[in-house]
Amino acid sequence: MKTAEELVRDCAALLSALRAKSPLVHCLTNSVVENFTANVLLAIGASPAMIPDPEESGMFAGVADALLVNVGTVTKPQTEAMRRAVASARAAGRPWVLDPVAVGALPLRTSFAREVLALGPAVVRGNASEIIALAGERNTGKGVDSTASVDQAGGAAAAVAAATGGTALVTGAVDLVLSAAGERATISNGTPLMTRVTGVGCAQGAVVAAFCAVSGGDWFSAAAAAALATAVAGDMAAEKAKLPGSFQIAYLDALAEIDGDVLRERARLAR
Amino acid sequence: MKTAEELVRDCAALLSALRAKSPLVHCLTNSVVENFTANVLLAIGASPAMIPDPEESGMFAGVADALLVNVGTVTKPQTEAMRRAVASARAAGRPWVLDPVAVGALPLRTSFAREVLALGPAVVRGNASEIIALAGERNTGKGVDSTASVDQAGGAAAAVAAATGGTALVTGAVDLVLSAAGERATISNGTPLMTRVTGVGCAQGAVVAAFCAVSGGDWFSAAAAAALATAVAGDMAAEKAKLPGSFQIAYLDALAEIDGDVLRERARLAR
Amino acid sequence: MKTAEELVRDCAALLSALRAKSPLVHCLTNSVVENFTANVLLAIGASPAMIPDPEESGMFAGVADALLVNVGTVTKPQTEAMRRAVASARAAGRPWVLDPVAVGALPLRTSFAREVLALGPAVVRGNASEIIALAGERNTGKGVDSTASVDQAGGAAAAVAAATGGTALVTGAVDLVLSAAGERATISNGTPLMTRVTGVGCAQGAVVAAFCAVSGGDWFSAAAAAALATAVAGDMAAEKAKLPGSFQIAYLDALAEIDGDVLRERARLAR
Repeated sequence: MKTAEELVRDCAALLSALRAKSPLVHCLTNSVVENFTANVLLAIGASPAMIPDPEESGMFAGVADALLVNVGTVTKPQTEAMRRAVASARAAGRPWVLDPVAVGALPLRTSFAREVLALGPAVVRGNASEIIALAGERNTGKGVDSTASVDQAGGAAAAVAAATGGTALVTGAVDLVLSAAGERATISNGTPLMTRVTGVGCAQGAVVAAFCAVSGGDWFSAAAAAALATAVAGDMAAEKAKLPGSFQIAYLDALAEIDGDVLRERARLAR
Repeated sequence: MKTAEELVRDCAALLSALRAKSPLVHCLTNSVVENFTANVLLAIGASPAMIPDPEESGMFAGVADALLVNVGTVTKPQTEAMRRAVASARAAGRPWVLDPVAVGALPLRTSFAREVLALGPAVVRGNASEIIALAGERNTGKGVDSTASVDQAGGAAAAVAAATGGTALVTGAVDLVLSAAGERATISNGTPLMTRVTGVGCAQGAVVAAFCAVSGGDWFSAAAAAALATAVAGDMAAEKAKLPGSFQIAYLDALAEIDGDVLRERARLAR
Repeated sequence: MKTAEELVRDCAALLSALRAKSPLVHCLTNSVVENFTANVLLAIGASPAMIPDPEESGMFAGVADALLVNVGTVTKPQTEAMRRAVASARAAGRPWVLDPVAVGALPLRTSFAREVLALGPAVVRGNASEIIALAGERNTGKGVDSTASVDQAGGAAAAVAAATGGTALVTGAVDLVLSAAGERATISNGTPLMTRVTGVGCAQGAVVAAFCAVSGGDWFSAAAAAALATAVAGDMAAEKAKLPGSFQIAYLDALAEIDGDVLRERARLAR
C-alpha cells in the first residue's frame, strides 16, 4: 500500500493531469447548485455541461469525459435523463459519480439511488447520514445535513464500496475515502465555512467526476484528490475570508490557485 | 400595544432564537433565486432545502420547520408540489409563507396564489403591486417590479391580512408590516442597491419563513424581524460596497454578522 | 457606411438609452445561468424576468421589451414556452435574440434552433462552432466550448444573418458582428477570464436583447453595443481581479460602472 505521502503525490499529479486535459463533466445535478457547480469546475480547470433532456442527456454522456448524478432536486422526468446518461456513460466506458443527497426518508430519491447503485458508480460521495441510509442502515439524516459522524459511517461506507466495486467518499469534518479493495484514507483539511455556502459539497461531486476522468481507472486516488483539493482550497479561502459571502468567492479563487506544491505543503491526509 | 422599541427588542430576541435553532426551511421558490436564497438562509443561520418532486415535497414539508411558496417561475407541475407541501405543512402545524411574485396579469400564478391564500399563510410578502393585485384591486405591476408605492398598498395589505388571518409584509423603500389583528409597523432601513441584485426580495421570503419557525406563532413579529434584519444587513453592506456585484457578497456577509445589538442600534422602525 | 468611431459613438448612445429606459427582458434561458443573467441585466441597467409556463410565457413576451431564447438546457416543455414566446414577441413587434448553445450534435436543440431561425430573430449570438453548426456546416463543437475560430465562422455568420434578415454575433477572442445587409465589425476587447465564469456568454445574449429594445430596429448596432459593453466590462474587471471568483464579482461591478466615455476610451472596434 502507498504511504500517505505517496498518495498525496499522486493527488498532485492528478491535479496536473486535470489541468492539462480539462475534462468535460456532464452534471445532472440539483437546480440549487448548478451555477456554483459549473463555476467550481471552471475554477479548478475542468469544463462543465448540464444537458437535461433525456435523449440529449443520453447522447451527451457518451461524449463527456465523466458524469455526475446528484439527486438533490430529483423529479421523475430527471430520473429518466439520469438513467439514460448512466447507461450511456457505462456503454462508453466513462466513469460516473453518484451523490445521494438526502437519501433516506424521501422515497423517489431513495429508490432511485439504490437502483443505480448497482450500475457501478466509480465513486459515491455523501455525508455520513446519506451513506448510512444508502447502505440500508437506519436513516439518521434530516434534510441535507448529516446528523451522523464520519466515524459512524465506516461500516456503511464499506458496504457501499463493496456494492459498487468502486470507492465511497464520506464527507464531514474529517473526510473518509474507502475503496472496495479496502484502501482507506482520511483527510482533515477543510473549514466549517464550507458548510455556510450552498453547493460546496454538491460541487465536490463534480470535482470527483473530473478527477475520475483523468485517473486511468484509479477511483480511490481520484476521490482522494478531489477531497484533498477542495478541502485545501477551503483552508486557503478561510485565511482570506471569515464570512460566507466573501468565502464563496475566495473558495473559487483558491480552486484556481491551488497546484501540486500547495497540495503537498498543506495536506493533512492519513492512511 | 408594544412600543417600537419593544418590537425591535423582540426582533433581536427572534434573531438569537433563529441562530440557536437553525430552522430547516423548505423553499419551493423560483429557479432564478434558488441558489441565492439558500445562501441567504445559511448566512443568517438557518438551513435551506428545496424538494420539487410532489410526493417528496409533501412529505418533506411536514419535517421542515417552515415552508416558503414563491410563484416567480411557477409551472403546472410545480403547483402540484406546492399544493401538497402547503397541505402537509398545515397538517403538521408548521408555518408557511406566500410570495406572490408578479401576480396580476399572468393567469397561472394569479389563480394559484388566490387559491392558496385561503389556506392560511402565516405571512404574505410582496411588493405593493403584487399585494394590490392579490387583493383583487387593479393590477399596476409590470413584471416583477412594483409600479405602486407601499402607501398605496395599505388597504390591500389589510385585505390580504384579513383574508389569511396572518400578516402582510409589503416591501419597498419603506416596508410595511400589518397583521390581521391590526398591528402595524414600518421599517425604513435598506438601500436601493438591494434592487440591483436579483433575489434579495425573494430570499427575504425565506428569511420570513425562518423567523416564523422560531416565533411561537407570532407572525407579525416574525415578519418585522425578517424585514428589519434584511434591511439592516442591506445598510451594512451598502457601507462596504457601492456596486451590485460587490454588494451581493457584502450583503451575505452582513447577514452573517448582524446580531441583536446591531439591530437595536440601527433599526429605523416606527409603529 | 459609418466609421468605426461613429459606430462606437452609437454604441455609447445606446448604452445611455438602455440606462434611461431600463428595458424589461424576458429570458427563456438555461437553468445554469438564470441567476447570473438576471444579475448581469440588473448591473448594466436593464430589468430581467423569467416566465417558464407556456401560457404565461406567451403573454409575457408581448409585455416585455425584448425576448431571449437560449437553448442551453432545453427540454420539450421548454420548447413549447419558447415557441409561444417567440410568436407573441413577433406579434407585438418586439425583438428577440437566439442563442444556439451547443447546437450541432444534440438533436432537440438543433432541430428547434433551426426551426425558430426562420422566425426572424433580431440577433443570433453564438460561438464559432455553434454558428457553423446552425448554418448547417459540419459541426466541430464539443459541448458548449467552441473548437473553431471566429475567422472560420465568417461564411456561416453570413448565412445565418441572411437566413434571419438580422445580425449574427460570433463571440470569441475577437467578436464578429455581421448583418444581413453586410455591415461588419470586429471587437477585440475582452479577456480569457470571461471563459472561466459560467454564463458570461449566455448573459451576453440577454444584454443583446436589452440593447435591441432601445435600438429602434438597428440590430447591428445593438449587437455591437452589447458585445462592446460586455467586453470592455471584462477588460475593466480583469484589471481588478485575476482569479475567477473575484472576476465574476468585478465583472458585475464593471457592468454597472461603464458609461459612454469609458466605451469610447477603451473600444478596440474595427470595421
